[in-house]
Formats: sequence, structure tokens, C-alpha cells
Amino acid sequence: MRLRDVGERRLISAVKRSFPARPAGVVLGIGDDAAVVRGPARLLITHDLLVEDVDFRAALFPPRLLGRKALNVNLSDIAAMGGRPRHVVLGLALPGRTGRAWLDAFLAGFREAARRAGAALVGGDFSAAARTMIAVTVTGEARRFVTRRGARPGDRVFVSGTLGDAAMGLRLLGRRGAAGRGRPSGRLLRAFLDPAPRLELGALLARRGLASAMIDVSDGLAVDLSHIAEESGAGAEVDLAAIPLSKELRRASSRPLDLALHGGEDFELLFTVRPRNLPRLRALGKRFPVTEIGRIVPGRRLLAVGPDGAKRPLAVKGYEHFR
Amino acid sequence: MRLRDVGERRLISAVKRSFPARPAGVVLGIGDDAAVVRGPARLLITHDLLVEDVDFRAALFPPRLLGRKALNVNLSDIAAMGGRPRHVVLGLALPGRTGRAWLDAFLAGFREAARRAGAALVGGDFSAAARTMIAVTVTGEARRFVTRRGARPGDRVFVSGTLGDAAMGLRLLGRRGAAGRGRPSGRLLRAFLDPAPRLELGALLARRGLASAMIDVSDGLAVDLSHIAEESGAGAEVDLAAIPLSKELRRASSRPLDLALHGGEDFELLFTVRPRNLPRLRALGKRFPVTEIGRIVPGRRLLAVGPDGAKRPLAVKGYEHFR
Repeated sequence: MRLRDVGERRLISAVKRSFPARPAGVVLGIGDDAAVVRGPARLLITHDLLVEDVDFRAALFPPRLLGRKALNVNLSDIAAMGGRPRHVVLGLALPGRTGRAWLDAFLAGFREAARRAGAALVGGDFSAAARTMIAVTVTGEARRFVTRRGARPGDRVFVSGTLGDAAMGLRLLGRRGAAGRGRPSGRLLRAFLDPAPRLELGALLARRGLASAMIDVSDGLAVDLSHIAEESGAGAEVDLAAIPLSKELRRASSRPLDLALHGGEDFELLFTVRPRNLPRLRALGKRFPVTEIGRIVPGRRLLAVGPDGAKRPLAVKGYEHFR
Repeated sequence: MRLRDVGERRLISAVKRSFPARPAGVVLGIGDDAAVVRGPARLLITHDLLVEDVDFRAALFPPRLLGRKALNVNLSDIAAMGGRPRHVVLGLALPGRTGRAWLDAFLAGFREAARRAGAALVGGDFSAAARTMIAVTVTGEARRFVTRRGARPGDRVFVSGTLGDAAMGLRLLGRRGAAGRGRPSGRLLRAFLDPAPRLELGALLARRGLASAMIDVSDGLAVDLSHIAEESGAGAEVDLAAIPLSKELRRASSRPLDLALHGGEDFELLFTVRPRNLPRLRALGKRFPVTEIGRIVPGRRLLAVGPDGAKRPLAVKGYEHFR
């Protein structure tokens, strides 16, 4: 069945039925002019737009995983603030030819990601478009939150997980074409198609006051570290040999470091820690995979430190939407 | 200058600079992973998607008025809940060929609407797209709020302002083509190009407990009244002769009632009032233009009552996105 045969009103009813009726903290959910939720003292708000053929290629994504990722990349922003996700609104502009089955699978994935994070869908909007467009707004709460601007010279730089896997996964998918069948196998494909937001780690770092600055790695280590450095008015040095790379990435790529530095879409947490907090951070490292990769320095330069100790400027190559 | 020559990072800086730095209630604004705002006890959240060639035609809209309307249609949803707007996030997907001047004018209009309503832009996202796409999320607060579902048989139906003007304005614009030059003149054009959300009236009706159900008229009186009726589990009768029509509409259209019933985009408030509250409501009517147009009745039918007292079924023709 095509959306043009279903109609918007029945679609909204279907969405309403397919999400929990009375999630915690929701006073009034889907279907009125606005949702009403119980407000926390400190409210986080984040928003992401995903446009087909610009931010994602529909042919590469099973719709269920696209639904999960559309929400998870927003949840990753909440994680990077050290927050706990609360409420979600979803704007979907879809071509009239879109199959109802596609939408149901997309929403199922979206719902899975919401349930796992303890977040509730409370509203949204449908429209039509030649290309699919997904607008997600997430609110969260945090008694203590961590910005990009709190790093100081002397702080150490840490990152969670491994970097570059998602960028390699995208390349592998591009090579073998559409991945429509079944769940992705292998760490690299999964890193790209089904990233998990580091909500638990982010909240812990904020609550315990361990991170002085934090961001999620969405545009690549170099660009995202440059955000922390710029906003904090400092420079940074990265030990190239310390950057955590998976065995799978080393095996699949001849230039894994390049993908880790400039690939993007890792959705790991990049954060800085004051020297006095290092022992407490290292104790945490037993529960969470975090790796020290560098330090904040005076000045404004970003430097890459090679295995021989030589320092070179770190190239900051951002993805540019408007080309 | 084209967006593709400006780049996303400089655009975000420009947006940040062009909106107030520290609006009330904002702990952390544009530029981090998420915004942080002081949360009210009851938080309203609403979201609208506007897609070029589906929800608006760019050729008809001076960009400044499009910016105002993009925010004002969302603020109208907050008004319909009886809320006070607080915070705004803006997602913009734009073609790379978009002129910087167009974006600046759009943002100027958006800022005007925000300032007038006392709302603060706290974040958002840019992406690229073949057609312009605007995603707006607005939060608001309300100690008492009004849903669509509180109407009971015996309640009277009221509407603010006049209906059908915006639909006629759209037709006039279509006839004379692009209206790019200057501000719109005339009530009908203005109703379509530059609607004002009824925030003061909506908040007053909620605060004083005068409205038992409320919605804003975005899809036409018939469709929006059907929402109140359905959600409240009741029927409604509309006195056709009582529907408020402007002199300008009567002069310009041979079928003004049709536009009032089915035209849409009026962004007036449609609400119901218990009989015991009618005296207090009528006292309000001196400050605000509100007109009694019908009543809530038992059953599920929507009826139009003609000047001769004859009742006919009221056609409910909604706009359908997926065609």
C-alpha cells in the first residue's frame, strides 16, 4: 500500500497506536496542537535534519535501521551533553510512492531506539516531498551538563570506543551496493548502519564532574576536536599512535588512521579531563572503553604527534552540505 | 553570494550572531550539541514541516514573510493550547544555489516573529536539498492548557477574527503571480502571507478556564471543528449565517462561505465554551474579536444550519499531502 492511498489522518492514527499510550512524564501525547510534558529544571533540546541523497542514501539502509539511526544520532547529542533523553518529536516528509511497509519498518526502528533510551515520542508532522526528509527534535534533562567550551591547557583528551569503523562500513556498503537484506553483519557495517549512542557513559561523566568538555564524534575526530579547541579558546595535540582502531578496520583499510581522523559518523564521545580527575576516570575505564589520545595545549593550533614524536598540523576537513 | 560559497560553519556563526545572545530562560544557546533551557513545570512541544512546492510556493513569498510565517504557524499551535512560547529550534534544508540575501531575509523575518512572541531561537540544523524544507520545533509553557477533547454537548462554538481571507489571498496571489516586491497590501494578501498567531487570546482563554476545547484553524473550519468533535466524542452544528466574513472577502469572492469552511490557513482560534461561562466570555469579546458560530451536540454528526434553519451535513474535506 502506498502512502497516497492511506492518507495523512490514518497515518497519524497509526503512529499514535504504534507508540506507547502513556509514557512517563507525558501529560498529553500525539494528536493535539502540541504535546504537554512535565518539564525538568534543566531542559536540553537538540535537532537534526536528515535529507535523502544528502545525509543518507535510502538504497543503503534497511528502513528499520534508518529509523533507529535517525533517532540515535540525535540521542548521541544528548549523550554528549551528559543528559538523559526525555521526549522526541518527528517530522517526516515522504514521497507519495513510499510503501506503507517501509514506513512501518522505519517507525519500528525509531520505536526500538526510543524504548532503549527511555525516550517518548510525543508529536510531529507529516508532509510530502520528492525525497525523504527526516527532522528529529529530542529533549533531555541534566542536572549537570557538559559543553564544548570547558577544556583548559593541561587537560587530557579521551575518546570512547574505536574510530573510523563507520566510515569504512559506508565504503563497504557502497562497494557491494544495497544492503536491504537482513541485519548487517560485521563490526564495520554495524558501526555505520546501527550506531549506539553512548548515553550511559555521557551521563556518568557529567554527573561525576569528570569531563571538562565533551562532543560526539559525528564529523570525524579532527573536526570535532577542533570544535572543542575553538570553543575553549585553546589548541590540542593528538597522539596518532594512540587513536583506537579496531582489528576489523586495520584489516579492511590501507589507511585506517585517515578514516579515524576524517571519516565521521562514529557517534563516540570525545571529551577532556582535568589532570586531577585522571585516577577517577581510569577507574571508569574498566566499565567503558575509553582511550587517552592527546592533550589540550595553549595557543590555537591542532597538531598531530607521530610515533617518532614529530608534530605536524592536523588537517581539519569538514563535510560541507552546500556544494 | 550563494550558500555553497559560504559554507555551513560560517552560516551557523552568522545565525548565532544575528539572534540575541542571552535570551531569558536560556542557559546555553546555539552552537553546542544541544541547547539547555530552564524547564517550566508544564512543557508544550509542537513541530511543523514546511516543504517547498507542497506546503508553500517560494515564488509567492518574499523570504522575510516566509520566515515570519514559518514560525508563526507553529506559534499558532502554542496559542491553541493556551500556552506561552518559550524556545525554538529551526531545521533548514536549502538548495546550494540559495542566495545569502534570501537566507538573511528569511532569518530576519523569523527573528521578528520570535521577538514579538517572546520566544528564543536556541538551536537547529542545516542540510542541503533540491527544494527548501523548513522544520520548526517550538516549546512553550502553560500552567493550564486546553486540548481538543474537552467539548461537551451544550457548549457553544466560537471563532476569533474572520475566516476565508487567507484562502482568498492565496488565490489572488496565484492570479497575479509572484509577489516578491515590497510588503503585501490589503487584508486578504496579508492574511495569507503574514498571519499573526492569537497568543494573547489563547493564553487568556486557558488561564481563565473559559475554553473547554480549542484548536487553531489551519485546515479550514470544517476539518478543524471535526477534530474537536471527534476528539471530544460529540457532534457539532454551525450556523452558516454567523460565520464571520470580512467585507474584503465578500467583495472579492462569489463563494466566501466555501473559503471560510474549507479554505484553511486562517490561524484563528476555534474554541468551545460551557454555557455558564458565556457571560465572562462575552466580556472578553470587547477586547478580542470573537464570534459565536454554533454549538456542540450529542451524537457524532457535523451539521451546517442554513439561514432558513434547515440542517445539512457539513462536508469535511481535508488537505491531503500524499497524492
